[in-house]
Amino acid sequence: MSPIQEPILTFDIKPHLAHQAQQVETALEDLLREQVMDGETVRPARLLEAMRYAALSGGKRLRPVLLMETAALFGRTDEGVCEAGAALEFIHCYSLAHDDLPAMDDDDLRRGRPTTHKAFDEATAILAGDALLTLAFDVITGEMVHPDAATRLRLGRELSRAAGIGGMAGGQMLDIESENRDRTEAEIRTLQAMKTGALLRYACRAGAILADADEADIQRLTRFGEIIGLAFQLADDLLDVEASSDVTGKATGKDADAGKATLVALLGADATRSEVSRLLEEAQTLLAPFGDKADNLSAIAGFIANRDH
Amino acid sequence: MSPIQEPILTFDIKPHLAHQAQQVETALEDLLREQVMDGETVRPARLLEAMRYAALSGGKRLRPVLLMETAALFGRTDEGVCEAGAALEFIHCYSLAHDDLPAMDDDDLRRGRPTTHKAFDEATAILAGDALLTLAFDVITGEMVHPDAATRLRLGRELSRAAGIGGMAGGQMLDIESENRDRTEAEIRTLQAMKTGALLRYACRAGAILADADEADIQRLTRFGEIIGLAFQLADDLLDVEASSDVTGKATGKDADAGKATLVALLGADATRSEVSRLLEEAQTLLAPFGDKADNLSAIAGFIANRDH
Repeated sequence: MSPIQEPILTFDIKPHLAHQAQQVETALEDLLREQVMDGETVRPARLLEAMRYAALSGGKRLRPVLLMETAALFGRTDEGVCEAGAALEFIHCYSLAHDDLPAMDDDDLRRGRPTTHKAFDEATAILAGDALLTLAFDVITGEMVHPDAATRLRLGRELSRAAGIGGMAGGQMLDIESENRDRTEAEIRTLQAMKTGALLRYACRAGAILADADEADIQRLTRFGEIIGLAFQLADDLLDVEASSDVTGKATGKDADAGKATLVALLGADATRSEVSRLLEEAQTLLAPFGDKADNLSAIAGFIANRDH
Repeated sequence: MSPIQEPILTFDIKPHLAHQAQQVETALEDLLREQVMDGETVRPARLLEAMRYAALSGGKRLRPVLLMETAALFGRTDEGVCEAGAALEFIHCYSLAHDDLPAMDDDDLRRGRPTTHKAFDEATAILAGDALLTLAFDVITGEMVHPDAATRLRLGRELSRAAGIGGMAGGQMLDIESENRDRTEAEIRTLQAMKTGALLRYACRAGAILADADEADIQRLTRFGEIIGLAFQLADDLLDVEASSDVTGKATGKDADAGKATLVALLGADATRSEVSRLLEEAQTLLAPFGDKADNLSAIAGFIANRDH
């Protein structure tokens, strides 16, 4: 895939993103270790192992990194931000474990290794997903995330809405229903805004909320998160059509095989690339008032639009 | 099954319990209707229908009723208590939808009607469970449940712990692992305390917390909840051995068929019935300081120990 536009920034964002992802990995590790050390009740070893397998798979950790960079924009960079990011990542990882199940997308591989139900079994993968989803609400409302109880409540309730029937879970339902059926552009946009958009939107919104940004800035970053979600999905659809399976580490052309309508199929690759460019411009406009402080977020937006895996 | 002891009370608790259960039913209905009327995003009709199917199946609503009666002990009887009970019931209903899946307990019938994955399909049942679990955390932290944000946070975090790897989900994992394998009495007690005990314990604890009981009373009601959980499970095991499938509306002798060790199998029916009686006595002792006000809770304890379905 050819770059959609030249990178605006002169520095390479990737080492920074890798460092942030490593911080998230450590937070996830710690949170899934505490479950063992707590000692209050039994933590079934096999279930914890499956939760760790589903959650500690490496990767870019895009959602928590977005949350952390948004918080950093307003001056918060402490460990509590990373913990909020970890809660969000637990939600993402539970959804992958469930979406990969035979009854859902029926995937055997993710990031080049067996999916959770392949590495364990279906029952364990279902329970590991359930337990990660449940744990996320404990973590997002933890003392470290924010000193104010009302703010932690807001973060928890908004996470529930982003992940539930009006967000990610609802989007997955629409996605399953769209197999082997014609869908309009509007229908595809709705399902994508819910299935992948809701958590990316939440990432940017939550980062602003927990850093005590004012409501106008929270709205601005919410819109930025929506744009990230749109660009991410469009780039993903382009990749699915164009990339080789060697690069992505998962089967490609899979959406087309499953009879799933994508925007690329409806609009064509050129129009899709144009839309990504327009989104990237809007993202830069939204970040402009923050000046240099938004360099990282700006670079992430460019990175998402141009990613090759 | 013969009564374990004569009912202590002279009034019939059943009409009152039925009335309370109806209140819960209405709250569940309202909460699952709001999801449609909100209008902010699409609520996929099929997913909402499956959530309603999984949650609005009638039944005794034991967990929310326990929560409501515990709160009433400390003077709270408003609609917000019922809403907290509904959140807890969403967790219970999600777990039934997931536990019934082919990969888990593989049940076709529950309360005499097709299980959620039979009435819909497996993918929809998984997502409906996920969405009910997610919704529960929004509802338990709602403004109506308690005016104080810190108290709502406490209710939400404790719910997460009761439902997660250290509670219900962990217990289901242990239960699956115990199939076709010898288990000690201690292991069975642990899995039951987690699988069914954790939510019943939470019900009584949460009722006390949201009614602003002092910590000593919260502890007392927590122990009462643990006893209810133990008695409930022992009565259930006895039922599984003794009752006919006509009365319970589900397959019986199923645990034995699945090679699942129960306490009844290890201790014998007589010793099990004696233990239930002892638990019932401890429950009455715990409630004694509350006098007449605890008549309903006391009757529920007796009802659980003597239930025939």
